[in-house]
Amino acid sequence: MKKEETNAFRQQWIEYVYGLQDRICKALEEEDGRAVFKQDNWERGADGKGGGGHSRVIEDGAVFEKAGVNVSVVYGHVTEKMKQVLPVNEGTWFACGISLVLHPENPFVPTTHANWRYFEAHDAAGNVTHRWFGGGADLTPYYLFEEDVVHFHTTLKNAIDPFGPDLYPKYKQQCDEYFSNKHRDNEMRGVGGVFYDYLYLNNEEEADRLLAFQKANGDAFLEAYLPIVKKRKHTSYAAENKKWQEIRRGRYVEFNLIHDRGTIFGLKTKGRTESILMSLPPTVRFVYNYEPEHGSLEDKLLEVCKHPREWA
Amino acid sequence: MKKEETNAFRQQWIEYVYGLQDRICKALEEEDGRAVFKQDNWERGADGKGGGGHSRVIEDGAVFEKAGVNVSVVYGHVTEKMKQVLPVNEGTWFACGISLVLHPENPFVPTTHANWRYFEAHDAAGNVTHRWFGGGADLTPYYLFEEDVVHFHTTLKNAIDPFGPDLYPKYKQQCDEYFSNKHRDNEMRGVGGVFYDYLYLNNEEEADRLLAFQKANGDAFLEAYLPIVKKRKHTSYAAENKKWQEIRRGRYVEFNLIHDRGTIFGLKTKGRTESILMSLPPTVRFVYNYEPEHGSLEDKLLEVCKHPREWA
Repeated sequence: MKKEETNAFRQQWIEYVYGLQDRICKALEEEDGRAVFKQDNWERGADGKGGGGHSRVIEDGAVFEKAGVNVSVVYGHVTEKMKQVLPVNEGTWFACGISLVLHPENPFVPTTHANWRYFEAHDAAGNVTHRWFGGGADLTPYYLFEEDVVHFHTTLKNAIDPFGPDLYPKYKQQCDEYFSNKHRDNEMRGVGGVFYDYLYLNNEEEADRLLAFQKANGDAFLEAYLPIVKKRKHTSYAAENKKWQEIRRGRYVEFNLIHDRGTIFGLKTKGRTESILMSLPPTVRFVYNYEPEHGSLEDKLLEVCKHPREWA
Repeated sequence: MKKEETNAFRQQWIEYVYGLQDRICKALEEEDGRAVFKQDNWERGADGKGGGGHSRVIEDGAVFEKAGVNVSVVYGHVTEKMKQVLPVNEGTWFACGISLVLHPENPFVPTTHANWRYFEAHDAAGNVTHRWFGGGADLTPYYLFEEDVVHFHTTLKNAIDPFGPDLYPKYKQQCDEYFSNKHRDNEMRGVGGVFYDYLYLNNEEEADRLLAFQKANGDAFLEAYLPIVKKRKHTSYAAENKKWQEIRRGRYVEFNLIHDRGTIFGLKTKGRTESILMSLPPTVRFVYNYEPEHGSLEDKLLEVCKHPREWA
């Protein structure tokens, strides 16, 4: 595929992603009621070559203790390290995506993460050899409210079902497998959601369909997450609840730094460290061999992390 | 080398390591004044095959907010993953080491880590093909007291110098290189110490000399660290000092989970997760793009992490 043929498509995606960043940030500020996102614009190379991004961050909000919603539009020459982890050969690449992680202050409001990305691989002449979408959204509660998890999964399923009834079950399963701490007997960091990658755009018809699929997922996010925040944000909590949240946040850190492909890839390909590690929770606790009391609320959450369930 | 020839040597090392664990724990309990180590004995395989260890842990002590002093004596068949990261071939292996991480409560008392280990590789018949020692100790202060860093490094240097004047400078340099966050422009997690690995025991004379070298290092630890604790543990501090400590602890977590070979190797070879991750600090803070004020005490610490100095 010739370079110029993808430019219009690329541009559509870039515009969608920036528009989504605006919509999500606006809704989160309204929900928070106090915090305002601060924006950091950054460039990848010292000379501006290689692209860059817009990171938007909240710290110490009324609802969101730490929240980041990042867009990056980056490109470059394929390196040896990239070849090891991505299906690319010699040539150049282009990537554009939006990534968000929201860490609420209240332990009864779940953390969430979502990411939707587009990747192109080019040959030496700059023509596209292959391109794909990846993405997903997942939920990390500290206490289990089954109705919240059902709402989150059902909203994602409803957005995906029009593209094929087999997709939600498949991507839900992939999410369960991906967001698990392999060094802890595959305990999940939360209750999952959907995760997909390498959805190849082999022709124009596929490109249009998959772009619609990506947008359906991106558009569903606020509807999947915000009602849960609204419902739980005024719940009163004790120091013990906060402590448990911080212990579970420790597992979040373990997953992101040990297993998450995006984090490791970003750090190894000289991404912007502060934007990549913005995903880490604001305060965290690591307690030796901590186990909640059998049958406690904390234990009930742990059970669904250890044994993923069907929710929608 | 025949199997039985190394058994006596191995035994000497195992006894030294357990003795050192006792000595260090006793001294730390005395220094803490309140805390008592709890011991967890664990086995590597469900059936007890593969060895195990003794983990000793303090949590919420008067001086040590979290402290772990672990001994492990482990063995098994060489796996594919081991071949990727260690100089070993088909056959079996044996390892025994002591590892400690001490996280004081007071931000004016530095964190420290030390580890001394012995490794054997065997051919299919169980005969030793090669064996080596590794180890080191390093210091992670949150505020810079130059005299403390000089004391720590000088004590290690004095212990090492009798074995060759070239060793301390070499192992100090290796420590600076090893304990650096590559994803943060090689910022060190602290002010270093010494780090060495693959000191091969090619013959009996070398084995005796290197065993003496390991013991000299292990024996020097308390002398290098405890006087600093004594001097700083009663320093009064403010919430801002604790916050800075927790931010720097965040860098400690990043190093251990992203870069530390021992941690990654342990988690990938099905080591005991709780004993490996005992190294993680008790409470941690991740603040987006945090930079201390230019010229502040926090900034002075950061300067020596960014630009390692000579201390002894």
